[in-house]
Amino acid sequence: MKSVLLHCKNYKSKIGKLANHPTDISPEPIKEKKQSEKNCIVALITVEKGDNPKRCSEELDKEISAFAQDVKVKNIVIIPFAHLSNNPADSKTEIKFFEYLQDQLAYNLNVTRGHYGSDKALLLDIKGHKGNVRFREFQ
Amino acid sequence: MKSVLLHCKNYKSKIGKLANHPTDISPEPIKEKKQSEKNCIVALITVEKGDNPKRCSEELDKEISAFAQDVKVKNIVIIPFAHLSNNPADSKTEIKFFEYLQDQLAYNLNVTRGHYGSDKALLLDIKGHKGNVRFREFQ
Repeated sequence: MKSVLLHCKNYKSKIGKLANHPTDISPEPIKEKKQSEKNCIVALITVEKGDNPKRCSEELDKEISAFAQDVKVKNIVIIPFAHLSNNPADSKTEIKFFEYLQDQLAYNLNVTRGHYGSDKALLLDIKGHKGNVRFREFQ
Repeated sequence: MKSVLLHCKNYKSKIGKLANHPTDISPEPIKEKKQSEKNCIVALITVEKGDNPKRCSEELDKEISAFAQDVKVKNIVIIPFAHLSNNPADSKTEIKFFEYLQDQLAYNLNVTRGHYGSDKALLLDIKGHKGNVRFREFQ
């Protein structure tokens, strides 16, 4: 699992078409076509083949929670983003990971979950302070 | 070398403080404190220890040029972004890579190069079509 965590002033997304790559992708149902959030941590996440989803989501929960505390925000956006690796996991593993991560973060934080399996327009308005962007990798 | 290529409607950046992490970082001189571009490909790039900078920049040049042709844009923004790997190269290798890549792309395209060695506010307004985001990795 690889993740880029961004402290954003603004986040917006708008779902376009459902993805058809890789050929065995199974998009989840669309609940909301548009999302937006202000002063938030946006986590772009690629789950990879061979990852332990439970362990990875627990580790990432700690990192996101620590970042949230550092920059004093309560709003978290977790986004399935298959573009941090050439080795993304299958759809079932990805969705399971995101459901688990969302549940964990939701104990203390306000969590928005991006849709899995679509081409999305994304607005990432990233703040300019030290430690504004963090890379994390777990297996 | 890892890179995330983004087809953006808008790109803006504003340099904050010079980075002091890792401790041996040597930021380059600041030529412009703010940048902006419209309808462009933004390439976030992490050069890694052990990479062959010449080969990697030639491979990435091909990928960016192909992307530019696919989406019919002429404006390219290449950004040193140390957050796609836990193994970033030293400052000298990074800067050499970016100078070389800029020169290559500039044969056919309009290239903006982001500053190496600073905390930056970034606005990434990513379009929502298929193939809007691409991950590329070379060594």
